[in-house]
Amino acid sequence: MSSAATRPAGPDHLWSVDEHLEDILTTVRPLEPIELQLLDAQGCVLVEDITVPVSLPPFDNSSMDGYAVRVADVAGAGEEFPAVLEVVGDVAAGSAGLVRVGPGQAARIMTGAPLPPGAEAVVPVEWTDGGLGEGPVSGMRARSLAPEGAEGHVRVHRPAEARAHVRAKGSDVKAGDRALEAGTILGPPQIALLAAIGRGTVRVRPRPRVVVLSTGSELVQPGEELGSGQIYDSNSFALTAAARDAGAIAYRVGAVADDADTLRSTIEDQLIRADLLVTTGGVSVGAYDVVKEALSYAGDEDEAGSGVEFRKLAMQPGKPQGFGSIGPDHTPLLALPGNPVSSYVSFELFVRPAIRTLMGLEDVHRPSARATLKAHKALRSPKGRRQFLRGTYADGEVTPVGGAGSHLIAALAHADALIVVPEDVESVEPGTEVEVVLLG
Amino acid sequence: MSSAATRPAGPDHLWSVDEHLEDILTTVRPLEPIELQLLDAQGCVLVEDITVPVSLPPFDNSSMDGYAVRVADVAGAGEEFPAVLEVVGDVAAGSAGLVRVGPGQAARIMTGAPLPPGAEAVVPVEWTDGGLGEGPVSGMRARSLAPEGAEGHVRVHRPAEARAHVRAKGSDVKAGDRALEAGTILGPPQIALLAAIGRGTVRVRPRPRVVVLSTGSELVQPGEELGSGQIYDSNSFALTAAARDAGAIAYRVGAVADDADTLRSTIEDQLIRADLLVTTGGVSVGAYDVVKEALSYAGDEDEAGSGVEFRKLAMQPGKPQGFGSIGPDHTPLLALPGNPVSSYVSFELFVRPAIRTLMGLEDVHRPSARATLKAHKALRSPKGRRQFLRGTYADGEVTPVGGAGSHLIAALAHADALIVVPEDVESVEPGTEVEVVLLG
Repeated sequence: MSSAATRPAGPDHLWSVDEHLEDILTTVRPLEPIELQLLDAQGCVLVEDITVPVSLPPFDNSSMDGYAVRVADVAGAGEEFPAVLEVVGDVAAGSAGLVRVGPGQAARIMTGAPLPPGAEAVVPVEWTDGGLGEGPVSGMRARSLAPEGAEGHVRVHRPAEARAHVRAKGSDVKAGDRALEAGTILGPPQIALLAAIGRGTVRVRPRPRVVVLSTGSELVQPGEELGSGQIYDSNSFALTAAARDAGAIAYRVGAVADDADTLRSTIEDQLIRADLLVTTGGVSVGAYDVVKEALSYAGDEDEAGSGVEFRKLAMQPGKPQGFGSIGPDHTPLLALPGNPVSSYVSFELFVRPAIRTLMGLEDVHRPSARATLKAHKALRSPKGRRQFLRGTYADGEVTPVGGAGSHLIAALAHADALIVVPEDVESVEPGTEVEVVLLG
Repeated sequence: MSSAATRPAGPDHLWSVDEHLEDILTTVRPLEPIELQLLDAQGCVLVEDITVPVSLPPFDNSSMDGYAVRVADVAGAGEEFPAVLEVVGDVAAGSAGLVRVGPGQAARIMTGAPLPPGAEAVVPVEWTDGGLGEGPVSGMRARSLAPEGAEGHVRVHRPAEARAHVRAKGSDVKAGDRALEAGTILGPPQIALLAAIGRGTVRVRPRPRVVVLSTGSELVQPGEELGSGQIYDSNSFALTAAARDAGAIAYRVGAVADDADTLRSTIEDQLIRADLLVTTGGVSVGAYDVVKEALSYAGDEDEAGSGVEFRKLAMQPGKPQGFGSIGPDHTPLLALPGNPVSSYVSFELFVRPAIRTLMGLEDVHRPSARATLKAHKALRSPKGRRQFLRGTYADGEVTPVGGAGSHLIAALAHADALIVVPEDVESVEPGTEVEVVLLG
């Protein structure tokens, strides 16, 4: 039986927004972790504590292009009385360290190259004559054009303290340190650190695969000819885009006609690639409400977690909603209403948090803010329903866009916030402070 | 010649951060627009004004599941004295309108179905007996289970005003209205509107294809064995992830050894799939600085827009930088320094705005804020250089993380902001207000 069935909620119970959301969030569980290539794990949540296997840097190395020297050899050096040192070779980044610096000697060294044995400090090339026997230079000539730079003599114009321009082994992180903690979201800098300590793969919760279906015999694919009584399918496009925006890998199945058998077999077909199913339409009280009809058959009463429950919510838009699970893996399914604004608002309130819960994220909700209502007249809201109106938010003020009608897609496309009118409020005067959900 | 060559900037000119950025942003042009499938255009910038071809809704339709009636027939109706009407059939969504409602008649109608001729209003099914001859019902039975619901008689318990529960044709948008303006970024609600008005494809600037290469003979792929003097390649991973985060389609080519011919041929090979090339390493004053060496050959002096210029910036980290264009299409190339923190900070400051400029976005920069420095001691910064330190930002305060060293990747992975210390400031006391770049 579905988790919802444990509540004392008959078919006529009017669910609050919070009850429905709580039912979803306590039922949907984070996906099982998998090992992913580093770049495939971007945006995912780490499920393991990562320990540094080898110190960074792994060896003392130069932070400058210059010369590796012994401190005593350059003590008191100046441009007028330079220290003249024998150049015993190059140490490039990636060198395995064949050069040794003895008294009176220097090795030409590149940024990131290991400090050679015998050397105690690095002097930048700009503090030397670069081996050319003239004044200070601004850089080295390319090895391929001037191989003689790796030999001969260099004049050093300034002294250096021990360890000058040397990055010590382990000065970034040490072997055994905690690099990242389980629960970290992997963005570019975290991926940088994982790569730097040698991790090619990492254990994370994967992005959920979300299958989006819209239902309705009136729906025509955009770009095709509209017949009498028909409209274009917009929900499957909007919700696929919204699922991607929430972090999911989303598949748009498109519009299914109002036939229960067709819908049932389409859903069964899609289960193999779905961590979450989202349908729109067919959940209300009509005689052709195919999602309700088709999914009433899908639950096995003896099977834990199977079955979709259809509910009325104390909400506008979005009163009729379905939630449950389906198929052998008890794949969660959210059945949203079919009006475009209803389905979009329902997605933001219920599906987005479900997707982010599947990803293992802590913070599953859109940010909200308090804002002053900027309007010419009071907003009206039905008693006992939590209303979500579209608005534009800026600098602590929110302005309603369009009316309350759940078919007003154009207004939705010009909004960036939802204005929340609580259940017990029937009128909101201009200048009142209201809660807004920021749609990012 | 490159745009940079028009400036009075010799090889020893020290460029400010702003000069370098301006050079990039005045050189890089938005990509040519292409026609994309709606869902492929998500996050892209529209380059055409979109006009509504057909009004939405395209026809008067019902906002409820109920009965389409004539107003006079239900005038004065109540539960005790209901209006009894003959049900002449169903009007489902997608119906082409064969039913006509005459005096004393009603058509059972579904949400979204066209208002049939003769009908003037819709009464919700909850205001009727649903044709069952008993009290008010809460919904209709499915047509497939109870086909008799489309005929017989219905008792209506409440009157309805003309147009009640009817959504008028064109009440969302009218044919000829401006739906969206050129310059709009296409998120889910904008995609909803485009689909709803029948647009299957749309003209946008595509996401730029960014090729990321790191250079250095010391670099080993994460997951492999680290030899003496070697480190793991982290830059190509970090910058590929960062490019995707900025909106690009990014290709990680990985680490190329410090050999000019190999690098040149790798870059030439990649040009075919690159709108922007990003390299790391090999741009400083060393004898093995392969990017500088390889790309000094790439420019054709007689060709507009060809050639990469290597510069010193008044910045820490990130002093050495290269910028220019390469190949027959003058593909822009940014050559970043090789230290991990330097390359990441350079990406944020220069590559991210370049990517967003290619996308045609207006807002190309990370948001910045003012914050109070929370630290145990003053921050030190070299005179004449703009310094970018890593920090964590919360509630108007910023706390430095790690030191100034450009090899400190672990600190970077725990930061979410860059603390900006201006060129003329050498010390910042705790409690001072500073500018921070929010890495989001």
